[in-house]
Amino acid sequence: MPLVDMKDMLAHAYENGYAVGAFDLAELDFLPAVLTAAESARAPVILRVAKPRSQDSVFAWAMAAVEAAGARAAVPVAVQCGEGADADSVLHGVRLGANGVVASVLQESLFRHIDRTRAIVDAAHACGVPVEGELAYVPDTDARDGHASRTIQYATVAEARGFVERTKVDFLVVSVAMVRGRGKSRFDWGRLKEINAALGIPLVMAGEMGLADEHYRRLIMLGVAKISCSVVPDALAGERLRANARRDRHAPYSALKEGLHEMIAAQIEPRMRAWGSAGRAAEVLDRCRPWTNILHIVVYDTPRLDAQALRALMTEGQRLLSGIPGVRSVQAGSVADEGGRYRHCLLTRLASVVAADAFRRHPAYTGFMDRRLAPVVSDRIEGDYHVTEAIPEIAPRAFSSAPVSDRARPSRDGAEHGQGLDGACVPRTGINRGKCS
Amino acid sequence: MPLVDMKDMLAHAYENGYAVGAFDLAELDFLPAVLTAAESARAPVILRVAKPRSQDSVFAWAMAAVEAAGARAAVPVAVQCGEGADADSVLHGVRLGANGVVASVLQESLFRHIDRTRAIVDAAHACGVPVEGELAYVPDTDARDGHASRTIQYATVAEARGFVERTKVDFLVVSVAMVRGRGKSRFDWGRLKEINAALGIPLVMAGEMGLADEHYRRLIMLGVAKISCSVVPDALAGERLRANARRDRHAPYSALKEGLHEMIAAQIEPRMRAWGSAGRAAEVLDRCRPWTNILHIVVYDTPRLDAQALRALMTEGQRLLSGIPGVRSVQAGSVADEGGRYRHCLLTRLASVVAADAFRRHPAYTGFMDRRLAPVVSDRIEGDYHVTEAIPEIAPRAFSSAPVSDRARPSRDGAEHGQGLDGACVPRTGINRGKCS
Repeated sequence: MPLVDMKDMLAHAYENGYAVGAFDLAELDFLPAVLTAAESARAPVILRVAKPRSQDSVFAWAMAAVEAAGARAAVPVAVQCGEGADADSVLHGVRLGANGVVASVLQESLFRHIDRTRAIVDAAHACGVPVEGELAYVPDTDARDGHASRTIQYATVAEARGFVERTKVDFLVVSVAMVRGRGKSRFDWGRLKEINAALGIPLVMAGEMGLADEHYRRLIMLGVAKISCSVVPDALAGERLRANARRDRHAPYSALKEGLHEMIAAQIEPRMRAWGSAGRAAEVLDRCRPWTNILHIVVYDTPRLDAQALRALMTEGQRLLSGIPGVRSVQAGSVADEGGRYRHCLLTRLASVVAADAFRRHPAYTGFMDRRLAPVVSDRIEGDYHVTEAIPEIAPRAFSSAPVSDRARPSRDGAEHGQGLDGACVPRTGINRGKCS
Repeated sequence: MPLVDMKDMLAHAYENGYAVGAFDLAELDFLPAVLTAAESARAPVILRVAKPRSQDSVFAWAMAAVEAAGARAAVPVAVQCGEGADADSVLHGVRLGANGVVASVLQESLFRHIDRTRAIVDAAHACGVPVEGELAYVPDTDARDGHASRTIQYATVAEARGFVERTKVDFLVVSVAMVRGRGKSRFDWGRLKEINAALGIPLVMAGEMGLADEHYRRLIMLGVAKISCSVVPDALAGERLRANARRDRHAPYSALKEGLHEMIAAQIEPRMRAWGSAGRAAEVLDRCRPWTNILHIVVYDTPRLDAQALRALMTEGQRLLSGIPGVRSVQAGSVADEGGRYRHCLLTRLASVVAADAFRRHPAYTGFMDRRLAPVVSDRIEGDYHVTEAIPEIAPRAFSSAPVSDRARPSRDGAEHGQGLDGACVPRTGINRGKCS
């Protein structure tokens, strides 16, 4: 199945009273576990990849793995890049395959926070990629501590509305729970209800996996359409490894991981059911646009240029074009056989239709095409193509491509039973969003 | 840096008296460690990915990660698929990005062994991919046992020669060590020398990382150009995790891996120096063909077909073409904007020039193009292109593309000092291959 547009995916969840789980893949080992759980629950899922500090190369191939796995998954998947500190890092994530990003700017004055977030939103939206904003900021304390003295700054309803209006973020992270620990959690339901009523966009709950089902239901009812998890799988996975190490004092690495995937999947799947995303895969696929790249193809001939001059020109072109926002890769090629009228090609892969539109108007593109390529090219053909890839392991499947907003929206009353992908009846959490306080 | 042709890479090692390390990535965690070691030693390296039983999807995204990491590495990389039981599994590996495969058929009569290996070689060679053959077979005993009663069947020199002539394998795994363990290793140097003299192809040593430097030197002198490692990193990595677990009884998963990469890299790098591959990166890049895919591009228009008929035709085309050996992917697309004379495209990515040549003659291709597409297409342009991709993180670099065999070969007397990539002097193992017994 293809990756799907993350904005459509969360709009569907928001409209239909459920929340999609987003799972941090700090370790690629968690990837098969998350997909196993999602496929077993027939739930749409968001795979989150954070850029590890100083490990740019690891980030690049981890994203390649996640994109390849997502495209082969039996459920709809969105890929979100975590921790986008600025426009550049967000564009880097889009280049590597993210179709959703997080604006994660440092805590500072509200005005600077808005300015920085807006800069990230502008960059991401120019690539057709939605942005998750954060307003209430939890200062980074020792994660092992987990309670006590840290201060959570809650946004007021007016601040939240002003923030979303000015920044144009697509989703907003909200903190509603008071500090957990010491056996108590306190929720500020009234504030969440007001924020939801004021914003009307999918809200995001971060870092929670251990709440009671009734709390999840209430959160979702009040606008939470995405629940992000990180810490719990890491801690659980650690426990599993230590248990395996105790059992076999000479176990090699691979043996230490025995049962790891199964254990994580068994933790995640019940959450997907509690969050109401189980059984929604087919519906999401039908209602959401597939996330497909655009291929800008130029085939041309340059009879007057020698090989060296052509190579220099193409190196320049690849450098210029690959710096344009929303460009994922630039391939330059020459014919492998001797025939053909168009002896060279230039293929630019763009993140989305929106990115392709901006690309054609970008001065680096028009400058290169008009001033550098046109004068030496005798003949050329070009076009922007929506492409779908056949993955041999999985039979191709046709998808509707109309966006969620162009269709009759399903009822906000989500208390129903749905069809799983195989036609099996999957119970859904019945939530009347906004009708209960 | 690009991936390089594995046959060229091992030919260079064989001619110049060193061996390239091939490291099993049963765990993707080992990938950054192996690349760190290779980059630090400026050594060419082979990344080996074995297909895990029943985990086809994991294999697919692991290969995507390895290919992306290889293309971004600062040293030349080849990607080898381990455990090719038959032609189909080998073609599957090529589709996912391997440029070298292993013919790993079950132990059986020599004639059946030859027939099965030959079938694998035919399939791989039709894709331009070299094959590592195995003649001497070590029965699978308990790996923890590691000594005593298992029987190693050595091939005779005549068998080895007949096997290579009949199967056309490009490299041959040889077993020269008697069973290790109980503090003793015995090598049959005379037999290795005779096999090398009879075959004249790069020989492969499997599963050894703990030999003395002098043993490695002698093995390489007698034709070993590739040393494959698997078991040791797994055992070492297990030790490291257990040590971390003892130090912190509540460590999460990520903390249990602390120091893992550094420890593995520190084990591997000295081996690369002992095997003489350290400091060879620049030379290998200069002498070996880059491993680049061929893109078969068709742009066309079908004014008489409606959208549904076109989609059905393209689905059929994608299915037919993606089943052809050497095809890595088939993308079908239609214009994103309304302009343009060629409103549709069909892009087939092929593993190599050899695969592209076979593709154009394949009945599934000619049948689809002539009988299905041509009658409904008003106008079309097509061509096969060598493409190189600009990876924005790393500046593009021009490479010579002549194969090793087209160039003056360096001296077989490898006792010299070479230039590292940064111009630093890197000591090399001096080996006069074949001149010493």
